[in-house]
Amino acid sequence: MSLRVPMADLVPGERALDAEQARYVGRVHRLKPGDTFVAFDPSRAIECDAELLDARRVRLGPARPARAATRAITWIHGCPKGDKADAIVRDATELGATRMIYVQTTRSVTRPPAARVVRWSKIAREAARQCGRGDAPDVSLAKDWESALDAAGDGTRIVLDPTGGALRDALAGARGPLVFAAGPEGGLTPGELAAAAARGFAACSLGAFVMRTETVPAAVLGAVALVTES
Amino acid sequence: MSLRVPMADLVPGERALDAEQARYVGRVHRLKPGDTFVAFDPSRAIECDAELLDARRVRLGPARPARAATRAITWIHGCPKGDKADAIVRDATELGATRMIYVQTTRSVTRPPAARVVRWSKIAREAARQCGRGDAPDVSLAKDWESALDAAGDGTRIVLDPTGGALRDALAGARGPLVFAAGPEGGLTPGELAAAAARGFAACSLGAFVMRTETVPAAVLGAVALVTES
Repeated sequence: MSLRVPMADLVPGERALDAEQARYVGRVHRLKPGDTFVAFDPSRAIECDAELLDARRVRLGPARPARAATRAITWIHGCPKGDKADAIVRDATELGATRMIYVQTTRSVTRPPAARVVRWSKIAREAARQCGRGDAPDVSLAKDWESALDAAGDGTRIVLDPTGGALRDALAGARGPLVFAAGPEGGLTPGELAAAAARGFAACSLGAFVMRTETVPAAVLGAVALVTES
Repeated sequence: MSLRVPMADLVPGERALDAEQARYVGRVHRLKPGDTFVAFDPSRAIECDAELLDARRVRLGPARPARAATRAITWIHGCPKGDKADAIVRDATELGATRMIYVQTTRSVTRPPAARVVRWSKIAREAARQCGRGDAPDVSLAKDWESALDAAGDGTRIVLDPTGGALRDALAGARGPLVFAAGPEGGLTPGELAAAAARGFAACSLGAFVMRTETVPAAVLGAVALVTES
């Protein structure tokens, strides 16, 4: 896989690198003038070939569609502790989520500041770069559990609950967009599960054992990838 | 889910707790005399009800089969950095692996000491306790890649490779034991992939993007759980 560098506004021709891009290609990856890489714009899911001209300038080729997620997947997650939230963004990006909504729930032990969205979005772009994905999930922070569920949009709606039915059955007939909701370390309260049920979320579980909150997205989205892959 | 405490040799009747067990039920979980918990023996996949009599003594009830993994799943992994190896043991335990084999491969950046197996085994028992699983995977360290593959035993054999075929096709007809092999951070070399192919491992990928090595077990075993759950 070629070196991939996120870059906005991909227009063919010569342009200057910003300080972070220049550091990344020159210092981190030691590219020399004449070396090539792939520039990609995660917000538009396009990419192009790029040639380094000198330490601060590149020449971009014509833009083409990048390899992007093919299925709309929204992932709603009750905020876990900070490093777990970061890890979940990485996992969900690698496994094709297109939208992530964090929300403080009853059993969340942290209340993330709104500014955390900037950090998560950057982690998502970086994870997209590493996994060869040309788009990145949109990450946001909802005001409360009901708002997060209401923002879910169309699609098959599933809330992860260790006492729920088999995920296989819920995914079997599902076509098109998917929406998942999962709780933080201590799980969801009966009231939160009821609020989800009232909005058409089916309670589902995966596997015979109780996963930690940070394992759930990779396992569930891995299962989704199995039935989505073409 | 009741508090679960790992304990060897479950025989009905009164017995003393060892120092670690006493600390765990008394200090960490603040159980008082008369409180109950579940004692389980991960090496035999049995469990029993237990009643705390005083700070150091319990009364055990009759043993019963614990909820254990139902499918034999061996997971072979090229050693990643230390904290990732720990995380992989936790993920694989929650998702039902019954046997884990770590091995140093060409692109492994660390050479774990043989004593690391003790640590991994402890992590596996602790993860089993947390996820309500009555057994724990056997963890070992193989001498080299070929030895790890040769130790795989019977079953459908799959090596994870981003350029491989669809995992769905390999799992579709698979009944009974499964064996997976995955590379460390930098992946497997062509020679390592060839050694796997020569031993009947089919090269498979999951999803459209390239997962980090530490995401692979949760995603793949989540997919396996989808087609295994009854």
